[in-house]
This record gives sequence, C-alpha cells and structure tokens, in this order.
Amino acid sequence: MQDCIFCKIVAGEIPSVKVYEDDLVFAFMDINPVQNGHTLIIPKVHADNLWEISASDLSAVHAASQKIVKAMQRALGPVSVAAVQLNGKAVNQVVMHYHLHLIPRANTEEPFKLTAWEMIPGDMAVIQKTGADIAAAIS
Amino acid sequence: MQDCIFCKIVAGEIPSVKVYEDDLVFAFMDINPVQNGHTLIIPKVHADNLWEISASDLSAVHAASQKIVKAMQRALGPVSVAAVQLNGKAVNQVVMHYHLHLIPRANTEEPFKLTAWEMIPGDMAVIQKTGADIAAAIS
Repeated sequence: MQDCIFCKIVAGEIPSVKVYEDDLVFAFMDINPVQNGHTLIIPKVHADNLWEISASDLSAVHAASQKIVKAMQRALGPVSVAAVQLNGKAVNQVVMHYHLHLIPRANTEEPFKLTAWEMIPGDMAVIQKTGADIAAAIS
Repeated sequence: MQDCIFCKIVAGEIPSVKVYEDDLVFAFMDINPVQNGHTLIIPKVHADNLWEISASDLSAVHAASQKIVKAMQRALGPVSVAAVQLNGKAVNQVVMHYHLHLIPRANTEEPFKLTAWEMIPGDMAVIQKTGADIAAAIS
C-alpha cells in the first residue's frame, strides 16, 4: 500500500534489520525497542489489522512468531516474551499495517509495568450479558 | 493438567462465561476485565506458553481470535482491540496455560495506558547485533 512504512520495509525501500522472512511474512527489529530484542512480525501483503488480514497470513505470522521466540531463547538466554498486537487507534496502534510485537525480557523478579494490570473483579451480570452478546454475534 | 485452573474451565469443573468453542479452542470472558468484553482464548490441550503450544493449536487459537474480534464489532459496535499474549513470569503471565487476551475498547481519543509506551530510539549497533543473533538462531 502506498505510503505504508511497513510495505516499504517489505519492499526494501526503507532499510530494516531483518530477522526472518518467508513467502508470507517479514520480521525485523523494532528501532524503538521496549527491551533489547524487540521484534516485529508482519504479513507481506498489506492488511490494516486483525479484521482485515487473511486467514493464511494470520496463521503464517503466528507460526513465524513461534520460530522466533524459540530463537530468542537460544540467542538471548532464558527470557520471557510478551506478544502484543494492537488493532485500532483507541488501543494505540501506530502503524496501520498488522504487526505482532515480540518483546523479550530477561527472567527477573523486577516488575515489568507494560503488561501489568490490576486484577479488579468485574460485574458478573455485565460480563454474562456481554459474553452472550459476543457469542451470539460469532458467525 | 492437574491443578491448572484453565484446564478445569475447559473440563467444566470450574464455571465460566463461554464465548466460543471448537475442537481445539475454548474462549471465555475474563472475570477481571480490563475493559468490558475482555475475552480469553485458550487451547484445550494444556501448553504453558508459546514455546510449548502445538502448531495446530496455535493456528486454531488465532483463527478463533479473528472470529471473535469480528463478533466484538457486531456485538459492541466500533471497537479497537488489543491482543496480548504473555509468556513467562517476567512479563506478568499469571496462569501458566497459554492464553490470548482480547481486550476491546470503544473508539475514543481518550488515552489507553495499558498498551502505550514511549518511543525511544535504540542503539542501532545493539539492535543490529541482537537482530543478527536472533536470525542466526532460527532453525
């Protein structure tokens, strides 16, 4: 897609530090890493988000993610990994080309704020109603 | 797996608000929702994390996630969705059974801190070295 920075990276028009590539998928280092080793995995064919990506590209991205997290353990030593994939501006998607963040972190007892949230019990009546609404909308 | 709360949910030994189920996957509402509609998708067969889950279960979880985010748009109206999947205690995995969080959020300009991070350019020499190390470890 014209003017898409990730499409330009796939095409080699913008340089990147490539980690992995196959027929469907391209993976490269995030240049604004949350942690050392922060990697992005994208489909080569443009799709804005999880609503638009093809089933085969979605499967390929996640198959690649498994290869890469295994490689992270081998390359970086024991790490935990956060896999984060954002869809839409209201959850802070910045580049509108589907991308999966793999954020490795050395195993430590130190807190990691990015993926921490307070566990606050919800209202069960609301949870049941919303769950039923989502379930009924699955086609 | 014995003493795994999510295996017990799959087996019906602990109640849950089910959203979706197929041969490989079970999806249910998080009872400590970050946002209304917060849903968890898990493989029925126990796997601790992204290193251990089978390729077919991984693909099935993400195929189900696409069905569910489409249903969220139909059920809840226009939403953005954060997909978050944590592997290991150092990134705050709480239940040691692979699970994908789908956190829908109404489209709004209000900031959402959970998936926001400051974009700080990394040291390109370190990024290139780490990227090369991970790439070399992919098998």
